[in-house]
Amino acid sequence: MALFDFASFVDDLATASGKAILPFFRTSLTASDKGGRGGVFDPVTEADKAGESAMRHLIKRAFPSHGIVGEEYGVEQADAEYVWVLDPIDGTRGFISGLPSWGTLIGLTRNGRPCYGMMHQPFTRERFSGDGGKALYRGPMGGGEPGERRLRTRRCASLAEATLSSTSPHAFPTAEEGEAFARLAQGARNVRYGADCYAYCMVAAGHIDLVVEAGLAPYDIVALIPIIEGAGGIVTTWDGGDPARGGRILAAGDKRVHEEAMRVLAG
Amino acid sequence: MALFDFASFVDDLATASGKAILPFFRTSLTASDKGGRGGVFDPVTEADKAGESAMRHLIKRAFPSHGIVGEEYGVEQADAEYVWVLDPIDGTRGFISGLPSWGTLIGLTRNGRPCYGMMHQPFTRERFSGDGGKALYRGPMGGGEPGERRLRTRRCASLAEATLSSTSPHAFPTAEEGEAFARLAQGARNVRYGADCYAYCMVAAGHIDLVVEAGLAPYDIVALIPIIEGAGGIVTTWDGGDPARGGRILAAGDKRVHEEAMRVLAG
Repeated sequence: MALFDFASFVDDLATASGKAILPFFRTSLTASDKGGRGGVFDPVTEADKAGESAMRHLIKRAFPSHGIVGEEYGVEQADAEYVWVLDPIDGTRGFISGLPSWGTLIGLTRNGRPCYGMMHQPFTRERFSGDGGKALYRGPMGGGEPGERRLRTRRCASLAEATLSSTSPHAFPTAEEGEAFARLAQGARNVRYGADCYAYCMVAAGHIDLVVEAGLAPYDIVALIPIIEGAGGIVTTWDGGDPARGGRILAAGDKRVHEEAMRVLAG
Repeated sequence: MALFDFASFVDDLATASGKAILPFFRTSLTASDKGGRGGVFDPVTEADKAGESAMRHLIKRAFPSHGIVGEEYGVEQADAEYVWVLDPIDGTRGFISGLPSWGTLIGLTRNGRPCYGMMHQPFTRERFSGDGGKALYRGPMGGGEPGERRLRTRRCASLAEATLSSTSPHAFPTAEEGEAFARLAQGARNVRYGADCYAYCMVAAGHIDLVVEAGLAPYDIVALIPIIEGAGGIVTTWDGGDPARGGRILAAGDKRVHEEAMRVLAG
C-alpha cells in the first residue's frame, strides 16, 4: 500500500477523533490523577478515551493486521510491520484548563521506524502532517480562510538566537534534567512554556527553534518525528539517539542549534 | 449613550484590528526588543502597530471626545470621561512563536473605572466580553460550529484545589515577586504557563481558578476586568487594591481562593 493511502486514512482518523473529543472541550470534567511520569499531575478525561476508541475502531476495521499503541488502551500486536501510535489528547492539562495548546497525535511506524505522523487540533481546525520527506499545514491561513502550505523549519545558528519551548520548567522528572534545562534556558534568547505538542509543530513551521522535554512516552513523540524531519528539522534524544522510544527529547529546526543544545544539556 | 452601543462598536474594533493583525501571524517578523518591563524580551511587531492604528482610526472618527491609551502609540486625552485602553497584541512573544495564546485587548473606562472589555482572538475566532455585570463568549462551540454562551467562573474553595496560571515563572520583575509566586505555585494543584491574556478568559469561563502576574501595564489588564467581574470573579492587585492601573495582578474565579492567594503572596 502506498503511503498516500495512509495519509488519506489518517485524515479520517483525525476527523473521527476530533468529533469524539471536541464536545468535551471546555465542559466540566472530572480530572483524575493516573500517576506516572514521575508523579506529575496528568489527568485522564473521558475525551481521551472517546478519541482513542474512535481511532482504534477505524484502524481495526481497515487494517486488522496492524498493531496499535495508545495512551489510554495499551498495546495490541506490537510486533506487526505497521504499528499505529496514538495519543488522543497530548496536553491534557492544557485541555482541562480550556486552552487550545493540546492536540491529537496520530503516528505510524513501519518496522519500528516512524513513517507518517499528524498533529490535529480540532478546536482551531489545524492539521500538521509529515512523512519524513515533506511536511504540510492545513488550516486557517492569513486571512482566516482555510488553506494549506508546506512546512519548513527556519535557520538558527546558535542558542543565543533561539526561541526555546518546553511544557513547564517543573515537568522534568529528575532534578538533574531540570538543571540541564535551566542551563539551556539561561542561554536562549526567548523561552516559552505551555505549548505541549503545538511547540513541535511550530518548530516545523519555522516559528520556534528548539523544544526540550524529558520523561516522554513513545506516543508523545512518534507522530511528531516525521513532521519535524519532513520540514527539515532534527529530533533526537538529548544524547543524539533514536527519539522513537521517547524519554529525553530534543527537537530543533537547524542542525547547528541542535548540536549546541546537546552540548549544553550534557553539562 | 447606552452601553449596548459601545458593545456593538467594540465588535467593530475587534473585526478591524483582527483584519489588520492576522495577515502577520505566522509570517516572518523582525522582533525588536523595546526594553521596558524590567528588560524582559518584549518584541514589537508591525502587526501590533497595524492593529492599534486600525482601532484608533475608528475611535477618533466615532468618538472624537474620547481618550485613548494604547500600547504602541501612547496617550491621547487621558482626562476624558471615556477612555479606550488598547493592547493590539497581548502576548507578543506567543504571537511570534506562532502560538494562538495572544489576543487583542479592547477596554473602555468611564471616569477611570473599567466599564466594558473584550479579548478577541482572531485566529481562533473567539470573543470574550463583559461589562462587569455579565460576560459573554462568542466563538466555536462543542461541535465546532459558531455560537455564544454566558461566561461564569467556577467554585474553588482553596489553593490546594486550584489551577494556577501565569505567563512564565521568569516573567516577574523582582526576585521578591518571583519568590512570592513560587510559594503560591507550590501550594496549587496544577500550574499552567504561557497562556497570556487567554488565562484570564479561562478564569471567566470556569476552567482556571487563579492568574497571578506582576509588572503589568494598564492596557494589559483594563479590558479583562469587566470580563472577569461580569463572570462572577474577582481581580485586584496582590494586596487587594484597584487593578486598573496594572502592576501586580491577582485574578480569581472564587473569592475564597482569592483571599488565600493574597495571604500566600504577602508571605
